[in-house]
Amino acid sequence: MTRSSSEDLTETMDTTKLAKRLDDAGQSHILQFWDQLSPKEQAEMSLDVENMDFIEINNFFQNAMKTSGQISQEKVDNRMEPVPREVLGSVTRDPERLKEWEKEGLRCISENKVAVLLLAGGQGTRLGVLYPKGMYDVSLPSHKTLFQIQAERIRRLELLAEKQHSRKCCIPWYIMTSGRTMDMTKEFFSQHKYFGLREENVIFFKQGMLPAMDFNGKIILEGKGKLAMAPDGNGGLYRALGTQKIVEDMEKRGISYIHVYCVDNILVKVADPAFIGFCSLKGADCGAKVVEKTNPTESVGVVCKVDGRYQVVEYSEITLPTAEKRSPDGRLMFNAGNIANHFFTLPFLQEIVRTHEPQLQHHVAQKKIPYVNPQGQLIKPEKPNGIKMEKFVFDIFQFAKTFVVFEVLREDEFSPLKNADSQEGKDNPTTARHALMSLHHRWILNAGGHFVDENGTRVPAIPSLKDGTDLPIKCEISPLVSYGGEGVEHLVNGRAFQPTLMIDENGVHERVKNGL
Amino acid sequence: MTRSSSEDLTETMDTTKLAKRLDDAGQSHILQFWDQLSPKEQAEMSLDVENMDFIEINNFFQNAMKTSGQISQEKVDNRMEPVPREVLGSVTRDPERLKEWEKEGLRCISENKVAVLLLAGGQGTRLGVLYPKGMYDVSLPSHKTLFQIQAERIRRLELLAEKQHSRKCCIPWYIMTSGRTMDMTKEFFSQHKYFGLREENVIFFKQGMLPAMDFNGKIILEGKGKLAMAPDGNGGLYRALGTQKIVEDMEKRGISYIHVYCVDNILVKVADPAFIGFCSLKGADCGAKVVEKTNPTESVGVVCKVDGRYQVVEYSEITLPTAEKRSPDGRLMFNAGNIANHFFTLPFLQEIVRTHEPQLQHHVAQKKIPYVNPQGQLIKPEKPNGIKMEKFVFDIFQFAKTFVVFEVLREDEFSPLKNADSQEGKDNPTTARHALMSLHHRWILNAGGHFVDENGTRVPAIPSLKDGTDLPIKCEISPLVSYGGEGVEHLVNGRAFQPTLMIDENGVHERVKNGL
Repeated sequence: MTRSSSEDLTETMDTTKLAKRLDDAGQSHILQFWDQLSPKEQAEMSLDVENMDFIEINNFFQNAMKTSGQISQEKVDNRMEPVPREVLGSVTRDPERLKEWEKEGLRCISENKVAVLLLAGGQGTRLGVLYPKGMYDVSLPSHKTLFQIQAERIRRLELLAEKQHSRKCCIPWYIMTSGRTMDMTKEFFSQHKYFGLREENVIFFKQGMLPAMDFNGKIILEGKGKLAMAPDGNGGLYRALGTQKIVEDMEKRGISYIHVYCVDNILVKVADPAFIGFCSLKGADCGAKVVEKTNPTESVGVVCKVDGRYQVVEYSEITLPTAEKRSPDGRLMFNAGNIANHFFTLPFLQEIVRTHEPQLQHHVAQKKIPYVNPQGQLIKPEKPNGIKMEKFVFDIFQFAKTFVVFEVLREDEFSPLKNADSQEGKDNPTTARHALMSLHHRWILNAGGHFVDENGTRVPAIPSLKDGTDLPIKCEISPLVSYGGEGVEHLVNGRAFQPTLMIDENGVHERVKNGL
Repeated sequence: MTRSSSEDLTETMDTTKLAKRLDDAGQSHILQFWDQLSPKEQAEMSLDVENMDFIEINNFFQNAMKTSGQISQEKVDNRMEPVPREVLGSVTRDPERLKEWEKEGLRCISENKVAVLLLAGGQGTRLGVLYPKGMYDVSLPSHKTLFQIQAERIRRLELLAEKQHSRKCCIPWYIMTSGRTMDMTKEFFSQHKYFGLREENVIFFKQGMLPAMDFNGKIILEGKGKLAMAPDGNGGLYRALGTQKIVEDMEKRGISYIHVYCVDNILVKVADPAFIGFCSLKGADCGAKVVEKTNPTESVGVVCKVDGRYQVVEYSEITLPTAEKRSPDGRLMFNAGNIANHFFTLPFLQEIVRTHEPQLQHHVAQKKIPYVNPQGQLIKPEKPNGIKMEKFVFDIFQFAKTFVVFEVLREDEFSPLKNADSQEGKDNPTTARHALMSLHHRWILNAGGHFVDENGTRVPAIPSLKDGTDLPIKCEISPLVSYGGEGVEHLVNGRAFQPTLMIDENGVHERVKNGL
């Protein structure tokens, strides 16, 4: 299994050796156009396949197909149980505990025990861009990118922890990229001087890639000299944590708790002290942050128990009667909506990497994968013609000894950026921008400020619908000023503002435009 | 107050007399362009103002301005109390009672005691059309209009009640139009043969109109010979019920219960037997159907108690801290979202018309109202320059002796059509169409049917997001086949369908398109 990594990468490609390996694995078709490739193309292809373990990939395929056939929908439905109240912490149901959890979280941070880990291996394909999503600017007044917003939240949080405990501290930021996003991501951070963080505390690493395969297990060529490759899912994290020696780095730094999240959520509370503190006080080794699912057919996975073990049941796996089940209080029984925001202890992650990761099966996603036919023509199929294999970051919930769930408010913490702007679009730049501005508007109102319109009339707390579009008040508060609404009262209390309002480390700025 | 209605309408206009009346009311400016008008324009203007009681209008203005100044936001907030559990019935919290309520409602219907009353006085201005909203086709597979959908639900419900009680019955349909929508509405119904209802059971009547006024109480001219007129709000219903002798007609027909609703909700359950039955069994004289408000800044009014009396507090009147208040269970404290779906007993409406209607103050809405200046030029103001006066249909909740609230599911019962389709739009033709198709998809799944895609693969109950748009399965069930999901099992159970699926009184039809 490890022979490829032990090979000498500088060694000139031995085509005969490669052909033998491919032949052994039944994948020799990928060389069918070899003679038509230019020397440069041959070299590139050689480099691509050099480190691939075809026997292992074949095994992944066999196992993935076996598992995906086994699980029948009805069976999962019948075995599902909701999250019990005793493992649940909630910002709305337990408001009296919030301060205590936050305090504990800040204590952990101040002791340098907390790291954040960003899943950023995907490209912005659905978003319509060719660069990593974290580099996207959703057109906030400041034009900050997702990466910058997250970096500045880390800086602010370090400051809050330092203030509370009068000692310097640091939250290391692990960033998982993929072969496709690594270089651009590193360059972007370097260009922007790590957004004020120290370079050595931003640690990049790469997740693996896997080839797409047809239904017979043959690797698909997307060009005469090019395999159809894709990252191995956000659950590729666990393999990468081992191969890239990330857990070792964490251990060296004395990290105890890791907050794992996805790059695309503009509202993400990185290293949220309330979440960390709740998990820590509960003695949890694994925790999931969730938002309440309120509509049965909403496309969100739900955290629940299956056969006594926690897992996420994806929305495509659930039947309608189960999705519609309700508790006696009238709420959906399965309402713990997964938002890819997880807490792990380091010992838990170590155990995963050491023991469980190899046991995790890949999930199979049937896809329409463009391929070259034997005549060398590129075909875009109309039906699914193959599969991609992925692991999911939540696949390891089942191994938790003490699993907890932390429920937060969607409007405060979850607005993912997935798609380009479009008619009746969801999860796009506009919805992300509006979600952030609406949150900051609420911070300002709750700190005693308010807005007036161009005529000086006070704007109601809930702005009215105009032309069918919820136009939020244009305002933005720099994460360097406020992590979660704190620290703005002295700036806004009793004051009236006209949008666009920006609050940053240099103070309060109003950018009033005439007309628009 | 009643002199205008006692005048002889056939009498030739006496300009001197009109000038005197206007002079007495301080409104003589509306004749400033009189000499420039053609005889035809003069005749039209005379007709418009003939029946207006300017003294009464001035009083409305004085009172409305007084009231709107009095109510301070903070005061309402402090006096608000949530709906107590004992007056609440809920489809999610009381599922075991549903059957009983429905049965009672159908009994009332079968005894000819139930009428529906449609508020359809508004034009589709925001929707971008010049005809009544009820005539709008949201591009369902059947291309049925809102009016047709509602008519067919009435027919189906009559049938269900008849089946249960083995006697013929009828649900009279009262339709409130305005000066602007009356003729087109009547013609549309006549053209379509009342959608299968009997003509004498569809009763049209008109709500009043009021002029827009500037901040000094002067009527605004929108043309040299034309007053800026608008319907007097959906609460204009109560005056119209009296002047148009609608309550008398109800009494003659033996009606006990009236379901009042707005034309723009494509999912509306007209004369919903569960709602009627719940209100009837509770002995209520007045009831409101609501959906749960789950986001504090959602723009929906909430039903609550103020100073011990029920009312709707509009979203523009509530402060953020109050909107964010939560009950111990974590839900919003003020979560009874008003969807303009009301229940009244006839005695209650009679009492309103007789006693309370004249006491109801108009609400003031500041608007930008196009006007002609003294030079005769049409000006479109950039700031609000005047007010429109409206009464609201829920203004009478305060007079209820036994008020109840009935909570239903938004995804099952509420999707209003307010705006034209637009980027990130809400409440538009697309959202309305999708809401209806999604509901019918769920009916089919719950009746044992399912859908397959173009490759024959079973479509999951919760379709996945594609290109950022929740594309519902295209299916539509005629209201003549099913009112609320009943009556489709024998048609779909165990069967697989390819969209577009249509089920109507002639059976099941699949309209499969290649490609798209």
